[in-house]
Amino acid sequence: MAGSKYAYVKNYELPDNLLPGTFMIMRIDGHGFHRFSTEHSFAKPNDERALRLMDCAAQSVMDEYKDIVLAFGESDEYSFLFRKDTKLYNRRQTKLLSLILSLFTSSYIFHWPKFFPDESLNYPPSFDARIVLYPSAKEVRDYFAWRQVDTHINNLYNTAFWALVQQGGESTTRAHALLKGTVSAQKHELLFSRFGINYNGIPARFRKGSVLVRDEVKDARESGGHDFVPDAGTRTDLSEGSPLPDSSLAAGATPVAHQGKKKVKAIKTVRILHEDIVRNEFWDARPELLDG
Amino acid sequence: MAGSKYAYVKNYELPDNLLPGTFMIMRIDGHGFHRFSTEHSFAKPNDERALRLMDCAAQSVMDEYKDIVLAFGESDEYSFLFRKDTKLYNRRQTKLLSLILSLFTSSYIFHWPKFFPDESLNYPPSFDARIVLYPSAKEVRDYFAWRQVDTHINNLYNTAFWALVQQGGESTTRAHALLKGTVSAQKHELLFSRFGINYNGIPARFRKGSVLVRDEVKDARESGGHDFVPDAGTRTDLSEGSPLPDSSLAAGATPVAHQGKKKVKAIKTVRILHEDIVRNEFWDARPELLDG
Amino acid sequence: MAGSKYAYVKNYELPDNLLPGTFMIMRIDGHGFHRFSTEHSFAKPNDERALRLMDCAAQSVMDEYKDIVLAFGESDEYSFLFRKDTKLYNRRQTKLLSLILSLFTSSYIFHWPKFFPDESLNYPPSFDARIVLYPSAKEVRDYFAWRQVDTHINNLYNTAFWALVQQGGESTTRAHALLKGTVSAQKHELLFSRFGINYNGIPARFRKGSVLVRDEVKDARESGGHDFVPDAGTRTDLSEGSPLPDSSLAAGATPVAHQGKKKVKAIKTVRILHEDIVRNEFWDARPELLDG
Amino acid sequence: MAGSKYAYVKNYELPDNLLPGTFMIMRIDGHGFHRFSTEHSFAKPNDERALRLMDCAAQSVMDEYKDIVLAFGESDEYSFLFRKDTKLYNRRQTKLLSLILSLFTSSYIFHWPKFFPDESLNYPPSFDARIVLYPSAKEVRDYFAWRQVDTHINNLYNTAFWALVQQGGESTTRAHALLKGTVSAQKHELLFSRFGINYNGIPARFRKGSVLVRDEVKDARESGGHDFVPDAGTRTDLSEGSPLPDSSLAAGATPVAHQGKKKVKAIKTVRILHEDIVRNEFWDARPELLDG
Repeated sequence: MAGSKYAYVKNYELPDNLLPGTFMIMRIDGHGFHRFSTEHSFAKPNDERALRLMDCAAQSVMDEYKDIVLAFGESDEYSFLFRKDTKLYNRRQTKLLSLILSLFTSSYIFHWPKFFPDESLNYPPSFDARIVLYPSAKEVRDYFAWRQVDTHINNLYNTAFWALVQQGGESTTRAHALLKGTVSAQKHELLFSRFGINYNGIPARFRKGSVLVRDEVKDARESGGHDFVPDAGTRTDLSEGSPLPDSSLAAGATPVAHQGKKKVKAIKTVRILHEDIVRNEFWDARPELLDG
Repeated sequence: MAGSKYAYVKNYELPDNLLPGTFMIMRIDGHGFHRFSTEHSFAKPNDERALRLMDCAAQSVMDEYKDIVLAFGESDEYSFLFRKDTKLYNRRQTKLLSLILSLFTSSYIFHWPKFFPDESLNYPPSFDARIVLYPSAKEVRDYFAWRQVDTHINNLYNTAFWALVQQGGESTTRAHALLKGTVSAQKHELLFSRFGINYNGIPARFRKGSVLVRDEVKDARESGGHDFVPDAGTRTDLSEGSPLPDSSLAAGATPVAHQGKKKVKAIKTVRILHEDIVRNEFWDARPELLDG
Repeated sequence: MAGSKYAYVKNYELPDNLLPGTFMIMRIDGHGFHRFSTEHSFAKPNDERALRLMDCAAQSVMDEYKDIVLAFGESDEYSFLFRKDTKLYNRRQTKLLSLILSLFTSSYIFHWPKFFPDESLNYPPSFDARIVLYPSAKEVRDYFAWRQVDTHINNLYNTAFWALVQQGGESTTRAHALLKGTVSAQKHELLFSRFGINYNGIPARFRKGSVLVRDEVKDARESGGHDFVPDAGTRTDLSEGSPLPDSSLAAGATPVAHQGKKKVKAIKTVRILHEDIVRNEFWDARPELLDG
Repeated sequence: MAGSKYAYVKNYELPDNLLPGTFMIMRIDGHGFHRFSTEHSFAKPNDERALRLMDCAAQSVMDEYKDIVLAFGESDEYSFLFRKDTKLYNRRQTKLLSLILSLFTSSYIFHWPKFFPDESLNYPPSFDARIVLYPSAKEVRDYFAWRQVDTHINNLYNTAFWALVQQGGESTTRAHALLKGTVSAQKHELLFSRFGINYNGIPARFRKGSVLVRDEVKDARESGGHDFVPDAGTRTDLSEGSPLPDSSLAAGATPVAHQGKKKVKAIKTVRILHEDIVRNEFWDARPELLDG
């Protein structure tokens, strides 16, 4: 990209390195997904295939970019936390943003047929993205709490709304009116008394979103190799809080240390959880997430 | 995205509006395309399928974002020029960059099977992107000259290199050595005398890259409508400098004015050219590209 | 500034170079000058001493920073135009802003006694500053028109207001009420019919502000040298449109070209004008101001 | 600043708010102070008048901007720490930088005659400035350690150097050569054995720089009021580590709380210390400096 007398135009590219010592969180959001979900017959209020596809695209990102230590997804959005001291691409904002967004998008389209075998993609969807800096662990925790509380609020509302419409035969206008001003307890009560639905019994994926972490795997002899293209259809079968990765997950494992002796392997693999990340337990068990 | 006590974290998002009154050029580059092209058996020195797929992805972007007035592509990169006074997304850098990059990526994967019917995609490719500001028409012209001169230099080299390897039976090491230090005229001469290749006879797409412009179509009665999903396989059949769009191109046309009377339609459509954009002729014929 | 194990903190300083090829305009504004002018008994509506002091501080800046080609001042503000292609301090925003603001401030205090020989400075005043980028000549001209039109509007209002109060014996409340909603012609008429004041006869400095330009001086034999500390009291005696610098101004002259022959000297000196910079004449006579 | 058709140029001013939740440190540095100190006959290696003037200018800044909680000065530079959560001027970088730098500069010139009664100012000096963000308390401590260690290294070197020149009769070239490659202990030894100077006996102001903090004053009855223009000549008489402000310092005190009852007053005043800020003691005694 040099050589000619025109190459001076390259000097107009200005540096955009992000402040060192801060946590970067990158959030990806579906663009125009209201229309996209309608045109592709997503189930309401949650389409498990669509959520699993989002999880799979996020996992592709974490498989490629090891400095991402945590991700959280709900609906048509996903947030990624980089380790605080990452020097990836010299912390150049545009480089990081564009590469990760592009891989996420690409993976979403690439893996579509696995999650929607009977629904062909009608047109290419797109996402937007941003990177926000947070100076301390407190704001990082509050960021993820913000997203998970949002998941809860939206999902409870949507569950009640679509129960009224789909099972209760209400119009959407009437369903909105019925829910207007209700508090959480009233929505729980409505679901239970009118539709026999115990809200806490619906899948944790819907209620809590998806949490991607890297966990260590002790014995990785069964591992099929590193460049394995994730078969997300099986990898995401983990139930909430599952303490151990199953073998399909281990298959996506990546060695992070080779210390001479073949038998000692520290293997980390990306796991999908659907658990509470607002309370302390999650973070206390993973101090490395917020370490310097 | 508000409501909970955690919503304060949104305040850490800082504005990133780009300077008004400047030209924005966004360039998208393939990431790791050396490996990608090898794993997908791209022809050397140019794979027409791959180039047409890039053109198609770029056209998807221009179909969606009307404030892009010009695009230029070569190899695994594409550059987009916005009209100077665009207020799209309030000129927010990250919003523009992410949406357009994501749509380009998405379109690339989505349209892959049309251009590579016999070559399945092995893994999801990704691209990076940047937006650079240019204050005046001069720098914009020089930017595009920079890219097209680069196309020429690279393509002449690659054409000579692969002729030596594929037809001349030279090793890649020896081919590099033979070309080292040669000037343009020597490469032309080598191609002609040793391989009978008239460099100026090879397709303009390879020598000049692809130029996407919006041209007016007088009569658009055949137009099939606006939300047409581009059939890029046929739309890109235009030869260099073709003065009129063929009917398949017109099918992607978009009305830009409806002035009451049905019969008066100003229709613009994206056309693909492979012509010189270094000299004045191209720009003189399209003064609107560099207007305020 | 290096050496110890703590020097890593320097890495948190991020680059802030301004876009090449754009015009930088830096504006300095008095901070809390309402109080400052009261505490230092500034004459109303204009204090010539205070305006001349501002001019003098601006001239100090232009004497030091040769890449500033034009300045415009009114009231407690001054704007500086850099030549478009300046590479001063590598166009680092904070460096330019801080050095020029600091010198302006310093000069203001330093030269105070010359302009206010009978009024001691009660406390140190301060200024704020900003640098704004403009991509083309048009916006630069409009910027300076904006400031000079503002000068006119404010000064006409203030002249009428203080005539009503000082000569007409009106209260300030009543003076405001009388002027509310009046257009320009009405204020002219009021000044003339009630107070016999021909607005166009008041000093151009008040009506048009101060314009600092660099003009060539043909014969600079009288020049006293370059590091002359400006005697702003005499240097600012120029009347509006004065075609030639007087000798005190020439004393601050700086040679900008030495072409071998000693006798041919191109000398440029900073001159103070009080003329129209909205219309074309000013700019047509000085094409170098807006050149690349 | 609005009204005319030219006012659109104001839209080119872009926001520059600094990231919330981070510590801002602003450093001011003398520009061309080598020449300035020579032309104003500063004593070598330290000029106490010049240092006290710097302290005085810094104190003016802290008197005016209450969100600055700590300052550290040495030689011709001063650093200011804002409290982490300051919302001053909405954290707009240019506004903060320019106002504080301008007041510092202005105060330096304004107070000059008090510290240099026998040395008139020959020309207006200037300073540059920058604001750097630090995400956590650790980096803030390391920043100040960086500056104070720098003070020590420079002062020890300069003390030895000027002893060799002034008392030892060495040329400056020879003095540099003698010190080249020596470690700290060797310089101490040289000073003691050759010149009888116990380095630790020279004034703490020279060895440790100046530290400005806000300390509470229990009884402020003697306080002369708030808008007191600092009499820096007396206010800076504090010796190192002095545990209590003297009455001249208290005179600059500012009430920070009025809780109804007149007798309960929490008064804070700026104090000047010359003590170690590398070790924990200083910070442990003032936890509020690094609080959120």
